[in-house]
Amino acid sequence: MSVDQELERFYEDVARADLQPLWRQQRNLMPRHPLPETRAWLWQWKTLRALAERAGELISIERGGDRRVLSLANPGLGGQPFATPTLWGAVQYLGPGESAPGHRHTPGAIRFVLEGEGVYTTVDGDACDMHPGDLILTPNWTWHDHNNRADAPMVWFDGLDLPLVVHLEAVFFQQYPDDVLQPVTGEHNRSARLFGGRGLLPVGAREQGRRHSPLLVYRREDTDAALDALLAEQGGPMVGLEYVNPTSGGPALPTMSCELHRLVPGGRTTPVRRVGSSVVVVYQGAGSSVINGQRFEWSAGDMFVIPSWAVVDHQASEPTDLFAITDRPVLEAFGLYREVTLDGAQEVTGQFDRGVELSGPGRWS
Amino acid sequence: MSVDQELERFYEDVARADLQPLWRQQRNLMPRHPLPETRAWLWQWKTLRALAERAGELISIERGGDRRVLSLANPGLGGQPFATPTLWGAVQYLGPGESAPGHRHTPGAIRFVLEGEGVYTTVDGDACDMHPGDLILTPNWTWHDHNNRADAPMVWFDGLDLPLVVHLEAVFFQQYPDDVLQPVTGEHNRSARLFGGRGLLPVGAREQGRRHSPLLVYRREDTDAALDALLAEQGGPMVGLEYVNPTSGGPALPTMSCELHRLVPGGRTTPVRRVGSSVVVVYQGAGSSVINGQRFEWSAGDMFVIPSWAVVDHQASEPTDLFAITDRPVLEAFGLYREVTLDGAQEVTGQFDRGVELSGPGRWS
Amino acid sequence: MSVDQELERFYEDVARADLQPLWRQQRNLMPRHPLPETRAWLWQWKTLRALAERAGELISIERGGDRRVLSLANPGLGGQPFATPTLWGAVQYLGPGESAPGHRHTPGAIRFVLEGEGVYTTVDGDACDMHPGDLILTPNWTWHDHNNRADAPMVWFDGLDLPLVVHLEAVFFQQYPDDVLQPVTGEHNRSARLFGGRGLLPVGAREQGRRHSPLLVYRREDTDAALDALLAEQGGPMVGLEYVNPTSGGPALPTMSCELHRLVPGGRTTPVRRVGSSVVVVYQGAGSSVINGQRFEWSAGDMFVIPSWAVVDHQASEPTDLFAITDRPVLEAFGLYREVTLDGAQEVTGQFDRGVELSGPGRWS
Amino acid sequence: MSVDQELERFYEDVARADLQPLWRQQRNLMPRHPLPETRAWLWQWKTLRALAERAGELISIERGGDRRVLSLANPGLGGQPFATPTLWGAVQYLGPGESAPGHRHTPGAIRFVLEGEGVYTTVDGDACDMHPGDLILTPNWTWHDHNNRADAPMVWFDGLDLPLVVHLEAVFFQQYPDDVLQPVTGEHNRSARLFGGRGLLPVGAREQGRRHSPLLVYRREDTDAALDALLAEQGGPMVGLEYVNPTSGGPALPTMSCELHRLVPGGRTTPVRRVGSSVVVVYQGAGSSVINGQRFEWSAGDMFVIPSWAVVDHQASEPTDLFAITDRPVLEAFGLYREVTLDGAQEVTGQFDRGVELSGPGRWS
Repeated sequence: MSVDQELERFYEDVARADLQPLWRQQRNLMPRHPLPETRAWLWQWKTLRALAERAGELISIERGGDRRVLSLANPGLGGQPFATPTLWGAVQYLGPGESAPGHRHTPGAIRFVLEGEGVYTTVDGDACDMHPGDLILTPNWTWHDHNNRADAPMVWFDGLDLPLVVHLEAVFFQQYPDDVLQPVTGEHNRSARLFGGRGLLPVGAREQGRRHSPLLVYRREDTDAALDALLAEQGGPMVGLEYVNPTSGGPALPTMSCELHRLVPGGRTTPVRRVGSSVVVVYQGAGSSVINGQRFEWSAGDMFVIPSWAVVDHQASEPTDLFAITDRPVLEAFGLYREVTLDGAQEVTGQFDRGVELSGPGRWS
Repeated sequence: MSVDQELERFYEDVARADLQPLWRQQRNLMPRHPLPETRAWLWQWKTLRALAERAGELISIERGGDRRVLSLANPGLGGQPFATPTLWGAVQYLGPGESAPGHRHTPGAIRFVLEGEGVYTTVDGDACDMHPGDLILTPNWTWHDHNNRADAPMVWFDGLDLPLVVHLEAVFFQQYPDDVLQPVTGEHNRSARLFGGRGLLPVGAREQGRRHSPLLVYRREDTDAALDALLAEQGGPMVGLEYVNPTSGGPALPTMSCELHRLVPGGRTTPVRRVGSSVVVVYQGAGSSVINGQRFEWSAGDMFVIPSWAVVDHQASEPTDLFAITDRPVLEAFGLYREVTLDGAQEVTGQFDRGVELSGPGRWS
Repeated sequence: MSVDQELERFYEDVARADLQPLWRQQRNLMPRHPLPETRAWLWQWKTLRALAERAGELISIERGGDRRVLSLANPGLGGQPFATPTLWGAVQYLGPGESAPGHRHTPGAIRFVLEGEGVYTTVDGDACDMHPGDLILTPNWTWHDHNNRADAPMVWFDGLDLPLVVHLEAVFFQQYPDDVLQPVTGEHNRSARLFGGRGLLPVGAREQGRRHSPLLVYRREDTDAALDALLAEQGGPMVGLEYVNPTSGGPALPTMSCELHRLVPGGRTTPVRRVGSSVVVVYQGAGSSVINGQRFEWSAGDMFVIPSWAVVDHQASEPTDLFAITDRPVLEAFGLYREVTLDGAQEVTGQFDRGVELSGPGRWS
Repeated sequence: MSVDQELERFYEDVARADLQPLWRQQRNLMPRHPLPETRAWLWQWKTLRALAERAGELISIERGGDRRVLSLANPGLGGQPFATPTLWGAVQYLGPGESAPGHRHTPGAIRFVLEGEGVYTTVDGDACDMHPGDLILTPNWTWHDHNNRADAPMVWFDGLDLPLVVHLEAVFFQQYPDDVLQPVTGEHNRSARLFGGRGLLPVGAREQGRRHSPLLVYRREDTDAALDALLAEQGGPMVGLEYVNPTSGGPALPTMSCELHRLVPGGRTTPVRRVGSSVVVVYQGAGSSVINGQRFEWSAGDMFVIPSWAVVDHQASEPTDLFAITDRPVLEAFGLYREVTLDGAQEVTGQFDRGVELSGPGRWS
């Protein structure tokens, strides 16, 4: 038997034994730096809004099909309904008078409101009113339902760690028993009144915060004022806020950082690359981002994905607020986060692995 | 030589060798439960205010005598100027137009304003405006000076961990170089604008918070609203807030918890005993506290000490806010904190060690 | 246009916009409990050993094909060379006199030696001798090469968090520059001498441990003695050890718990289900495991996978040691870990979601 | 009334009100750097040993006088039986056949054996055998008794955080009920068998370690070997080990670091000053230490105190092991720890605050 025949037979035997030779991996398992399958991609608001509205006309909310949600399906991810390998992004549409019934699940979720008034989400009995620009949390294993008491629809952005939790094969799900909606206990927005203080917590709150953030709503007027202050202090072209669990100062969800960035027109941000992916929602304004050398023009309501290790910079043509979710807390938890700022002298287009010394100024954190 | 003579000579030799026999300790080093030397004590506002004003007339602020401060000297502590073994409490008086020059020290301090307007404390360059009911932090090793630009004096409560840091022989102190006052950088109240958000932090703030709380001011209007919300949610007779470092959810100073408690008239709180001491300042209202069986009547501006392991309950005759500093974070850091709630059936006067089983419902934390 | 036509057109438009309707997901994204694609599977040592030896004869180690590794390819994972969604398991074969050249990567790895002597792995300059039953760490971003100075091959089990880090798109990789092998600094097994004490650490070691475990080798004689002691103390049928980072008491790698379990013949362990997957290597002994109702017989050298939320129990017919890697630290980091012990009365075969109340005794951790 | 009369009356009124003017503090509350009352001091073994033996002859162990202990009374601490403001050091003598009955207390203790064999300390039911050079822990609120089953006495060093816990007014104490001695459960030295592994912990041990270190004994042969390895790796003149809680890598007791330092003859260590105090026990060897310019000669069994912020260096004339307890964990917990290494060029005698820039290379930790 020739060596080739021997090899052939060997590889057949290996495959039959449910093994794979590392040296023949088709897929490049160990690239010099991340080579994401996730693609930089942008979804336009006019398309999202129109399709959400058509869904509102065509699809009723009923048991078994609880949520009227169109999810961002990144073209790099093989047909999965995921924006990135760790993050779910979607548009949810709740028509006038509609309610989405109660359930809970181990994936954690955030809701960032884009349009509408008169809606509340009940989270473990606490009715959280929703207004444009507000952020609402429905953390891991909290009961939640959505209720529209107004004459107009509400449209919001859904962000979840679902792709990660699916990958970890750790999804649990339950319908709320018997009735579709939870009873609301007391006045609306209890969490904001109790845990939304400025450096203030009820005595004993730290213990509660171990399970998840006890603060469930973050208001647009607060982020707006905080970004103004940051801008006055630090100057442009961009400043950023993180929404945090007030009992720990940590990210709003343990798996997901929620951020709001304000851009002033004109300046262009320094190109940066980061390990980990993010989904960005243009809350207001207009401008463009260059991701791995490709320019994406955006305006209010548009959503786009920044893959891991992509070189990215932003430039606004109007005063702009960008809301973003990222998986940075996951990477940081395991010593995998890394961020490199690229100065102008570096040739960053085309050869993304050049000019970045791993022992250089971009440090592991 | 008789046994007695032998023993006598032995004890002489032991003493000469700078040793002490454990079995002859005069002081009860190992009591069944804490037997504090610290005494429950109350200082009345009318006395404090009058003496502070006389100090304002008689004593000028100048280099070498930087601060016009009258410290609470607990009669149990052998003439030391300390409210408790770990906590310093004092009244500070700053006359119209006066400035207290800059310095820094390793003991951390808080200022809780009782009277006056038009004053600011500059902390590492950030001018923090002070109003009645506000809390201002000057943490470990931060430069600080106080400036009165108004026509009336300001009087505030000073709380420090100085007795603890003195005991640890860890006090460092520096005068601000050259000029008496730090330059103020930018607009006043920078820390409140940047770190006083409702569940919001500037991206990267967590790193800053490791040194000390980046939030330096806590406003009366915020505590007032938060206590209203807590009361509506939890009911009386008492609810409590903690002032926290927003980057960690931990206490405002690592050594000292700052709290504000609201009492509604009528109800009496359940008697409780806690390991660790506290200094209480009556911000508004009137009522009484029973501490180890002794009743203390108080009204606005009064200050009192609760020693470690004392049985205490409170009752308000008017709507009341009690500000307090405690050393609980120190005890918790070392597994020494404990809290026991005493129900009405227990005989708690006189024999404080009865009726409290160490393995019972009052748990070590 | 009929409703059906409208719907059809709508779904076309949605797909064209790179969106997906949640209510039409083919894949069950939100099952009541984990429904892993990962399959329970067993690879037999006789097959693994024979194929590894054939690989040794047929495949040389050279630049570009650094490692002679046959990876466990779970049949449920669509042809990927992964044992589970988070864990890589493999057999590595290093022939007499061979060296596998230096490189480093962000995925962390462990080596558990099955056969051979006279080999060492150099990790950041520290040559770690390898003997059967030893565990060797090559953590995230540490340089490592393998060297066989003996006349016989060595075979070991490779465990990595590679599938997780690939999924997170966070893989970095570098070849060791210029020469294939790192210089060895000083005597072999430096980490064991410095950090392998019994409750002892060099002053200052905690700081070093933040990057990764400074202890890189764990010896068979130590685990053997520790399991004997555990068994004497706790009794059978099974006891378990965890290999830890001595500067934190945490898992050997931040993403991966390494454990060694000893089974005494006869008894059967209580069935349990856990969130998260594991790869088990039979170091010595023989017996069987029942996983989701399917019995797997095993003996020394066999390797098998336990998927997330599978019901599993073990029974030994000979004194047995099972080495295992699990992704529990990842699940615990995000509040996703859960473990339920099933008593005999429960019907656990077939309907794996019955008899397990989520609010019941199996608690979220 | 003259100004002097007014001032006099004012100060009288202030004192009568239990207040003290900060500007008249006799005691320098805020020195530029620590000015400890604690004095550098040395107790000689020949004196300690002789007095301990005389105590053994004169004083019986019985209920009410449980422990035959001579405590180091630092001459700077006003007659208190304390070595430093936070640390208790003492010699304990247990005669042949004697037992010291069971009790527990919130102050944590360590025992470092100087002489004798055949003794065990039972800690929560685990009998811990004691040999020269071993360290035994009796942590916060663990039951413990001591038993000498040999024909010769044992003498050991007792280290406690008692002065700190007394100062915090947090001492609780209980006699062991009914019988004087706890029943011993199982074989001796259970904690060493279960938790004394080399990087190994029983599965689930981390949870147990939250209360206190589950490892209660640290053996001389292990420290000896570890110091040899450190010396071989790092070179002299001095290397140091810390005894740690294996479930956290933290100090053996939360309030107290236990360390063992090996000095090789000849070299002199670099002078250093540290915030916080320590008690040093010369386990073997001979040499001298210069503390704040004063030379202390020592040999085996001697004990000495290093006060906070003292400049200290050591020089051995024989191979030397120095055991030490320090309060560094307390200072680190509150951001108060600091360490400065002084190079030879610095004038360090007499003016201890010169040449040490607070923003210089000696960093706050």
